[in-house]
Amino acid sequence: MSQVVKKIIDEAKQIYDAIKKKSRPELESPVRALSNVRYDSEEGYFELNGSIKKRTLSANTVKTFAQTLKMMSLSKDLIESNDIATKREAYYVSKNWGDARFKEQPESDTVMDDIEAMFEVNREKLGFIPEEKGGDIAGKLIVIDKNPDTDTDIRIDCTKFGSGAYSIPSSVEELKFETNAKFILAIETAGMFQRLVKHNYWKKANCILISMGGVPTRACRRFIRRLSDDMKLPVLVFTDGDPYGFLNIYRTLKVGSGNAAHINKYFCVPKAHFIGITPQDIIDYKLPTHPLKDVDIKRIKDGIKNDPFVHYHKKWKSALRQQMEMKVRAEQQALAKHGLNFVITNYLPEKLKKQDTWLD
Amino acid sequence: MSQVVKKIIDEAKQIYDAIKKKSRPELESPVRALSNVRYDSEEGYFELNGSIKKRTLSANTVKTFAQTLKMMSLSKDLIESNDIATKREAYYVSKNWGDARFKEQPESDTVMDDIEAMFEVNREKLGFIPEEKGGDIAGKLIVIDKNPDTDTDIRIDCTKFGSGAYSIPSSVEELKFETNAKFILAIETAGMFQRLVKHNYWKKANCILISMGGVPTRACRRFIRRLSDDMKLPVLVFTDGDPYGFLNIYRTLKVGSGNAAHINKYFCVPKAHFIGITPQDIIDYKLPTHPLKDVDIKRIKDGIKNDPFVHYHKKWKSALRQQMEMKVRAEQQALAKHGLNFVITNYLPEKLKKQDTWLD
Repeated sequence: MSQVVKKIIDEAKQIYDAIKKKSRPELESPVRALSNVRYDSEEGYFELNGSIKKRTLSANTVKTFAQTLKMMSLSKDLIESNDIATKREAYYVSKNWGDARFKEQPESDTVMDDIEAMFEVNREKLGFIPEEKGGDIAGKLIVIDKNPDTDTDIRIDCTKFGSGAYSIPSSVEELKFETNAKFILAIETAGMFQRLVKHNYWKKANCILISMGGVPTRACRRFIRRLSDDMKLPVLVFTDGDPYGFLNIYRTLKVGSGNAAHINKYFCVPKAHFIGITPQDIIDYKLPTHPLKDVDIKRIKDGIKNDPFVHYHKKWKSALRQQMEMKVRAEQQALAKHGLNFVITNYLPEKLKKQDTWLD
Repeated sequence: MSQVVKKIIDEAKQIYDAIKKKSRPELESPVRALSNVRYDSEEGYFELNGSIKKRTLSANTVKTFAQTLKMMSLSKDLIESNDIATKREAYYVSKNWGDARFKEQPESDTVMDDIEAMFEVNREKLGFIPEEKGGDIAGKLIVIDKNPDTDTDIRIDCTKFGSGAYSIPSSVEELKFETNAKFILAIETAGMFQRLVKHNYWKKANCILISMGGVPTRACRRFIRRLSDDMKLPVLVFTDGDPYGFLNIYRTLKVGSGNAAHINKYFCVPKAHFIGITPQDIIDYKLPTHPLKDVDIKRIKDGIKNDPFVHYHKKWKSALRQQMEMKVRAEQQALAKHGLNFVITNYLPEKLKKQDTWLD
């Protein structure tokens, strides 16, 4: 029996026993809010403080209580039948739960998040998969997956997809890896990824290329985390030189986000380093720029003032201050000013050599 | 020499000759606007009428004229060196064109669109690739690509990606295909795609699964079109039962869009049929619904009133009218009310059998 199924049965048994003893059953899960979060610099991610939300069965809570139990039961069915459900599908399944059915999807999403926090696992382990896919791979990596019909191994060689790529599945919990690459290069834009694939950059640099397509999806983050852990590989992150690239993409990938603190420990990538365009690169490489937008300025100010990650990492703080003074940002494609493949012949090799230009 | 390079050289030669004769050179391209579009029901797509925009070299046009020639030259370089550039990269390359450099990217995008229309090709053939990727494949298909280093064939077997998928490259012009599948199933949401992949639905139904992830990208549309043409396969489109699924996803895939009429002939998929959720399915399958949003109602009204595609296809017109009266929409995941895999055991097999339930 899987660990998670065992946890579900234990929890259900406690409730059953409480009811048999005519005492009121309780469900406990951590408070999922920014107020219950701290940055653990040792572990390297946003972590929950100890606050607990207790839900005792009463006339007021009976519906949510029932819904939580039904959702736990759905999760048990999914795991046991090796099936999956998206948040949206789980919502529609509830339409057959009689009075316990959800009226709107946000209600069922909340119950799912509570269960995720309650069992201290990411919900993919409960059989619940994200709605969206995202994240493409090319380069020196073999992914080992299972054929669902025969349960035999499938070996997927990411050097063999030509100009195409391997698209990460919605749930990556069961994947295994083989590689002799030296690092993972996680890239913001699909266009830059396509250039590096077109020129087999992974072969020259002995690496694995990952296209994030903006802020990486859950599946993409979890894939990078598992790959980095299992294969002990550093993750070099290559984004635009703007606050969105710094704080939304890089920071989220590295330490997680405030309102999902109960799962950051499964999704954060402590081995991430930033080799994208820094404010200093804009000067050193004489890059064409755009003026900072209002939303960029707000993001920088918020970051310097409120973000525990920025507070802890002094180099980031001074980079953000430098950008605020420069008042400009630059896209990763701006390197094309020096020739379309300047990024391959100059920028990336120089960055890889000079580790003091990285931000962490 | 490639056909396109020949066209570029011919055009450049004409201009050179005109200048040598001291007459004023001209560039001609079709007017790209809804006013210059008609729906050709025989060909099956929105097509340009004959209006032509002529640009004669003068003091006023000299800069755009120069930019157009420089962009043609960049295209020639790309094709000859087997390289690629995104719209954004092309913009940054222009930063080295002295006075002919573009100030903002929309300017260079327009020049690129003009060239695309002028040479009557899609811009992927000019070496210009889209910024975004998108479109995942699983099932009975072998894609044949080239290894860029050795120019030898690479065979990519889309039955061998496990729970993952083959991710379509940004440019699909050079791909070749092998398949004995009976049809292509193009799916709106990544979650539904993942369910069908998880259960190897492509094996049961002998088909190719494609995840569009909402409105399909250029690369995804072109891929479906080329695959459908080369392998003579029908394309069955499975979306939500809402005006976005009908008019934005299905209609765009099948006939193209008004403001890109100069390239619809390369991107439309005339062999597309709609097997997604129809208003009648909402009744027949007793699906859970959501009320139509204001934007849905506006889309239906616009469609019935102004869309030449809807005017021509009477079944679509009555389906849209029916939905207007019902005032509700349903998502493809709503089928999960009858069980998570009802879509595999009942809905899709029934739809495939009863072709009179399809909309075209």
